[in-house]
Amino acid sequence: MAAKEVTACMIVIGNEILSGRTQDVNLQHLAIELNELGVRMKEARVIPDIEDVIVDTVNECRVKFDHVFTTGGIGPTHDDITAESIARAFGVEIEYHPEISERIQRREAPPEVMAARMLMARVPKGAVLIDNPTGGPQGFQIDNVFVMAGVPAVMQAMVSSFSKERLGGGHPIRSRSIGALLGESTVANALKEIQDRYPDIDLGSYPFFRPDGFGTNLVMRGTDTRLLDQMKEEVRQMIIDFGADPIEEGDPRGQ
Amino acid sequence: MAAKEVTACMIVIGNEILSGRTQDVNLQHLAIELNELGVRMKEARVIPDIEDVIVDTVNECRVKFDHVFTTGGIGPTHDDITAESIARAFGVEIEYHPEISERIQRREAPPEVMAARMLMARVPKGAVLIDNPTGGPQGFQIDNVFVMAGVPAVMQAMVSSFSKERLGGGHPIRSRSIGALLGESTVANALKEIQDRYPDIDLGSYPFFRPDGFGTNLVMRGTDTRLLDQMKEEVRQMIIDFGADPIEEGDPRGQ
Repeated sequence: MAAKEVTACMIVIGNEILSGRTQDVNLQHLAIELNELGVRMKEARVIPDIEDVIVDTVNECRVKFDHVFTTGGIGPTHDDITAESIARAFGVEIEYHPEISERIQRREAPPEVMAARMLMARVPKGAVLIDNPTGGPQGFQIDNVFVMAGVPAVMQAMVSSFSKERLGGGHPIRSRSIGALLGESTVANALKEIQDRYPDIDLGSYPFFRPDGFGTNLVMRGTDTRLLDQMKEEVRQMIIDFGADPIEEGDPRGQ
Repeated sequence: MAAKEVTACMIVIGNEILSGRTQDVNLQHLAIELNELGVRMKEARVIPDIEDVIVDTVNECRVKFDHVFTTGGIGPTHDDITAESIARAFGVEIEYHPEISERIQRREAPPEVMAARMLMARVPKGAVLIDNPTGGPQGFQIDNVFVMAGVPAVMQAMVSSFSKERLGGGHPIRSRSIGALLGESTVANALKEIQDRYPDIDLGSYPFFRPDGFGTNLVMRGTDTRLLDQMKEEVRQMIIDFGADPIEEGDPRGQ
């Protein structure tokens, strides 16, 4: 690729994911949205609600990747320590953001409850906001670190506010997929030959098992749709050469 | 806790997770099983099928945690590079394991297909096997690194073979959960006071939003069931003091 790849790392902050209580769904959502925005997710980490771990992980990842996206830990309770951890990671003060404060104070509450809610207005000095179209407190961005809520509906609303311009993304990352009732071992050599001819496209092979048999899905990912279509045609021909029937995307025989 | 905590890190290896094509479900499964085995998952990483990244991540994590569990990348195709990456991480040769070879060769195949399948028999020198009750090729363990398949049914079968003895686990990690139709901000201060009185129990607060209102689930985790029950009783009383109705686990009004 001539264009420089724009990379991202996601940091999922939350004991509830590591304990198995909650199934994370934010990673998949962000990954799919970043494909459209031309940003490649290169790594994800799931870490506990421990300040030192958050600080170290953010500081490691923000120099290693173009963007870092965090989810979780920006609510009003004692285990919501993301904002202050990020401030510490950047060595800046934490302060009440006027726009978030205004949004929180619009809804009345007893003083003690309001004090807890106002914890969600604190952002590291220098941060800019990430819009929250649900109407709740906004997220924030400091340098290349984007801090979002963990509740999926809120996280998804925040992600919807990102633009290609804000993230400096490249061409959208597209994929092509085709399957067959052929074992992975059967196609392994032929696949490798095809992959070697298309160094700019990533070709993945994923087995599936079902009561009526087993098969393999072949997934191609890259930014050049002409190359993707050409490569897919070669994979389709390979499937036919093995005497099998190519299963197109969306066909219920695939997965 | 008097007993030393036994820690684990999971490494999910697979472009298909980072691209959003596939929703990972192995993390949650492993986390739940490790609770029973008295092992605490402290971190998880999702990394691409890139040898240098696998080597560096495994070498970083295996000194930082008591155990490392990997999933993915042990099939027969060009993108299955986990076994050789782990061998490189440990600086040892890779070799055909007689027991895995025997299992693979039991099922006949043309020479080229058999050659591809036999890639799954390669393990780093010195590795011991992880049983695969599905009858497919086994996983392996080298030192404190456990290498498993990425296909959930196969991964789950491998995990079922782990014993507390093999992992040196401590007391099982238990949880208690109780909810209420109260906002997080309302209970924030009272929760913090309860958490401060129980330093050995981890108290998490998770908001939920539904058409009929919003509420908070309170989750306590630890190894001492007496303390857990006592703390839950305090949380229940706190809910009642706020004039709300405690929602027990399994009650459809909770989540």
